[in-house]
Amino acid sequence: MAKNTVVIDAMGGDRGPAIVVAALIRALQSFPETDFIVTGDEPRLKSLLARESKGLSVDLSRVRIHHTSQIVQMSDKPGECIRKKADSSMRAAIDLVADGTAQACVSAGNTGALMAMAYMYLKTLPGVLRPALVAPIPNEAGKQGFLLDLGANPVCDAETLFQFGVMGSVLARELSGIEHPKVALLNMGTEEIKGPDVVKQAGLLLSQSKSVNYTGFIEGSDLFSSAADVVVCDGFTGNIALKSCEGMAKLVYEHFQRSMKSHWLSRSLAWILYRRQRKSWAWLNPDQYNGASLIGLRGVVVKSHGNASANAFFSAISNAIAEAELNLPARIHNQVEQVLQEQH
Amino acid sequence: MAKNTVVIDAMGGDRGPAIVVAALIRALQSFPETDFIVTGDEPRLKSLLARESKGLSVDLSRVRIHHTSQIVQMSDKPGECIRKKADSSMRAAIDLVADGTAQACVSAGNTGALMAMAYMYLKTLPGVLRPALVAPIPNEAGKQGFLLDLGANPVCDAETLFQFGVMGSVLARELSGIEHPKVALLNMGTEEIKGPDVVKQAGLLLSQSKSVNYTGFIEGSDLFSSAADVVVCDGFTGNIALKSCEGMAKLVYEHFQRSMKSHWLSRSLAWILYRRQRKSWAWLNPDQYNGASLIGLRGVVVKSHGNASANAFFSAISNAIAEAELNLPARIHNQVEQVLQEQH
Repeated sequence: MAKNTVVIDAMGGDRGPAIVVAALIRALQSFPETDFIVTGDEPRLKSLLARESKGLSVDLSRVRIHHTSQIVQMSDKPGECIRKKADSSMRAAIDLVADGTAQACVSAGNTGALMAMAYMYLKTLPGVLRPALVAPIPNEAGKQGFLLDLGANPVCDAETLFQFGVMGSVLARELSGIEHPKVALLNMGTEEIKGPDVVKQAGLLLSQSKSVNYTGFIEGSDLFSSAADVVVCDGFTGNIALKSCEGMAKLVYEHFQRSMKSHWLSRSLAWILYRRQRKSWAWLNPDQYNGASLIGLRGVVVKSHGNASANAFFSAISNAIAEAELNLPARIHNQVEQVLQEQH
Repeated sequence: MAKNTVVIDAMGGDRGPAIVVAALIRALQSFPETDFIVTGDEPRLKSLLARESKGLSVDLSRVRIHHTSQIVQMSDKPGECIRKKADSSMRAAIDLVADGTAQACVSAGNTGALMAMAYMYLKTLPGVLRPALVAPIPNEAGKQGFLLDLGANPVCDAETLFQFGVMGSVLARELSGIEHPKVALLNMGTEEIKGPDVVKQAGLLLSQSKSVNYTGFIEGSDLFSSAADVVVCDGFTGNIALKSCEGMAKLVYEHFQRSMKSHWLSRSLAWILYRRQRKSWAWLNPDQYNGASLIGLRGVVVKSHGNASANAFFSAISNAIAEAELNLPARIHNQVEQVLQEQH
């Protein structure tokens, strides 16, 4: 297996490059077969690398710093980044994948800008209409499911949703080892007559394809059930679904905290319970779900949450390495080609 | 104040008329100023009324049974119900509101059929484009928010979303007593450039209206925050948002149950904690959020969850009575007229 190189945008996240470099040091230790390039302000990154690796046995010769003078801000508009941020750490990361120097890149920066740059300079695979943002989601069986699109494409036509099903299916098979992943469309009911026309048309396309194990519509209430391994929707819907879950979790968690603080007995009981149960709940720790993949492109692009911790950013790097080792873009390419031949 | 009459579809729910009659008996006791009509199979309802009221001091003369021979099934298509279920308990309930015999109706039956019948036979208020399904949602401040549309209109144009904002605003003011309810549009970001065109156009309409306290876009993660009292979206999005929250809650709850059962100590601690905290969590009991209102019609229509318990169905009846007493349709009518005059 050829040695892979992963390029990391150090300047993108809300919490600055120190978090990114800490995660990189951990990746250097965990993935001895991978080389790294880190894009951003060279003097700053040099001193951070020295500081974070102090006392650890890591081989810093496996990291190359690629200096850039600009930073894409969270408030920047995608179009403007394309025109005005040619020497940004994000653009350099994309370019290094596009020219084959690296096989994958990771950024915690502005999602819209990352998608625009990836679409413009890395480009979609032949036959792929649109790249999709996909993230792993927990499910009741303790397995991992996948939800796409999460915001790269607010509005989609039926053919695009169909392709998301095809690409998501490859992802679930390669990353989770499920031979025939169950693919479902997120809809407002499970009956065939339910929902917007575009979702019904996508359902028809999926049901006619031999390459996809299509199981029909599922509702939001089954998002985390074992009813599907891959759940497909447009980017607007995916964003609303995932963020609403976050809102619900926040509501319950904040009330839990408030109510537990109300009396020493509750506080104590909750603490003992937490200690006992911590391991059993580890699968729900959001850190390990950090790292959404932008798939359908000619290279691996992983988007970390903007305010990821070093642990969470490390998960995103791990995802990028796994996808590069599997050569996921080539596998998606093969599958999409096969489906296109089926259709014609 | 004139005495109101509320008509109840006894045959609609998944759990049969016994649940409905039990809730009705409780309503008879709690609302001495309201009369009731119950639609469905007369012999069965007669015996259920006798059984459920046994030993209680309730005045059954305040209930009239309206016999019907048909039942709308959950699997029935709305269009077919319109054509073939003219003597159903649901249709009778709508007709009794339409002809002024009753001021409100409650049904736990097929949502699509209820909406179709209400739209066809009760009709929308003058100037109202589409009725909307709206439900109360909990929020962090311990107050009640409202989310609409929840599925009556899978796809909406900007003008329809704008009207939902106007109607939702009236609802929050009248039912929650908030003088200038904050109205927001559910979107995939808070910046003005985010989201589908139709949402942006609706935002423009809302921001130009003097009658609505519009606060901009909110994301799913703020659905239960105090950022908004009324959250507006199309029916597809509202359904996905609410059901995804349900899915998340189910995931956490089921894991909680499993993990608590794993050891006697966890089981015991969880039980003690539950006993201590029960009151503090009562505000999250879904029973009290049962009863979504179909607003924008010439009468009050409340939809109960299909498998509601007697307690939950009682909440739906309470909502219907509150809306009838406030004469909510007239208030919505006034507000919509005012807005239409503003626009022309």
